[in-house]
Amino acid sequence: MNYSTNPILVRYAETDQMQFVHHSNYLKYFEMARLSWLSSLGVSYASMEKEGILMPVVSAKLVFKKPLFFGDEFIVNVNLKRPPMATLEFEYKITNQHQDQICEGQTVLAFLSAENKRPIRCPKILLKLFI
Amino acid sequence: MNYSTNPILVRYAETDQMQFVHHSNYLKYFEMARLSWLSSLGVSYASMEKEGILMPVVSAKLVFKKPLFFGDEFIVNVNLKRPPMATLEFEYKITNQHQDQICEGQTVLAFLSAENKRPIRCPKILLKLFI
Amino acid sequence: MNYSTNPILVRYAETDQMQFVHHSNYLKYFEMARLSWLSSLGVSYASMEKEGILMPVVSAKLVFKKPLFFGDEFIVNVNLKRPPMATLEFEYKITNQHQDQICEGQTVLAFLSAENKRPIRCPKILLKLFI
Amino acid sequence: MNYSTNPILVRYAETDQMQFVHHSNYLKYFEMARLSWLSSLGVSYASMEKEGILMPVVSAKLVFKKPLFFGDEFIVNVNLKRPPMATLEFEYKITNQHQDQICEGQTVLAFLSAENKRPIRCPKILLKLFI
Repeated sequence: MNYSTNPILVRYAETDQMQFVHHSNYLKYFEMARLSWLSSLGVSYASMEKEGILMPVVSAKLVFKKPLFFGDEFIVNVNLKRPPMATLEFEYKITNQHQDQICEGQTVLAFLSAENKRPIRCPKILLKLFI
Repeated sequence: MNYSTNPILVRYAETDQMQFVHHSNYLKYFEMARLSWLSSLGVSYASMEKEGILMPVVSAKLVFKKPLFFGDEFIVNVNLKRPPMATLEFEYKITNQHQDQICEGQTVLAFLSAENKRPIRCPKILLKLFI
Repeated sequence: MNYSTNPILVRYAETDQMQFVHHSNYLKYFEMARLSWLSSLGVSYASMEKEGILMPVVSAKLVFKKPLFFGDEFIVNVNLKRPPMATLEFEYKITNQHQDQICEGQTVLAFLSAENKRPIRCPKILLKLFI
Repeated sequence: MNYSTNPILVRYAETDQMQFVHHSNYLKYFEMARLSWLSSLGVSYASMEKEGILMPVVSAKLVFKKPLFFGDEFIVNVNLKRPPMATLEFEYKITNQHQDQICEGQTVLAFLSAENKRPIRCPKILLKLFI
């Protein structure tokens, strides 16, 4: 289970006065990649939420290797580390237009009921994708 | 009806590579000021939302006079332009630690039902504050 | 002088608890559109900045007509209101995938020297595009 | 070396449609805490940057235990894990107004020359604080 986004342009507002992308944006890039990957599998996260299933991030790791600059274009590669259990574990690699390794990361996501914010099992719609 | 926030420190992540605060943040500063002002009047916007009342911004104007820099501390002054009607009209002035005029703005807010996202009247809890 | 962006997907992190896109993001969408438009004309804003020319926003107006939701895809149309002078005046229209009018706005941009943050004339590289 | 921020109010724009604070904001909260801590020691990061020293984040870990909601007020505790070397290693704990543990994290920061973006040693102004 491996997926790469289309090229994404760095937005001006994502830079800070260090003159490159602020590190908090990479968590947003990871999120875009995993939602786009779900979407490519025919799973709409928007409709999952409407049915009361939330997928919050419960932990994250990031290693920043090289900066992204305004004007750069990057790809996020996302990979499901293992079949879904009580959590989903993703790995990410961000690469710029020169094939430089920019950032690597991992996130663990849980499943929550929107109603009472308590943990629930991985929904069948996701499970069946990975069997 | 006039209210000023406590001094607020510019956050590093609010700057962009132009080396000062990105202009989109001023709409967030205005929002902080009007919610803090409501709170000072004993109105919790969080509980208004729980009761199904949303207050989206329907229009905004901003004039940027001087930049805010990382390390600066500013105050937002907010003023209700007229008694609440179908909408709330606010004016804002942002001033830095040297008393420089940084930004002026206005926003118009409407009242929406959270359930069906349709316009509703100004809730009594707000109306009674201004009579 | 009229330009439309490619379709842009709403990002999850751009929503707030009102369940649609936070209004401050529209200033970022406008910015993306005008930089993408410059880029389409062969002008790299990144290189303009390297040569010491900044283009800060000096005023902005926004009218929010309908919300954008996570999962929506929108286009930003940007139009230069008049030939460049001491400032650049842009108009914007945002339309979603159902052709709903989402937001209209205007921004005025100035030209600043990066060195001393003082106003400068419209650079020739821009002027010559509009004659 | 241990420092706690003043209470910080959750901003409305920091929430997403999951109805609590988007996880990317915690990296900004960590940043605010370590810059505020430096400031409490008499070190202005703004002036360090003017002298050409950047302190980018090179890696980060976060564990999210409980959500922060709009209306919540939290404190960030920051701790330098060991004396400064080629990098600075920080630990963070975020606690809400009910003393709930919200988030724990770590970041490693490097020192870069602003001019050529290459690694430099820990500046003396920081070193001398920890001897």
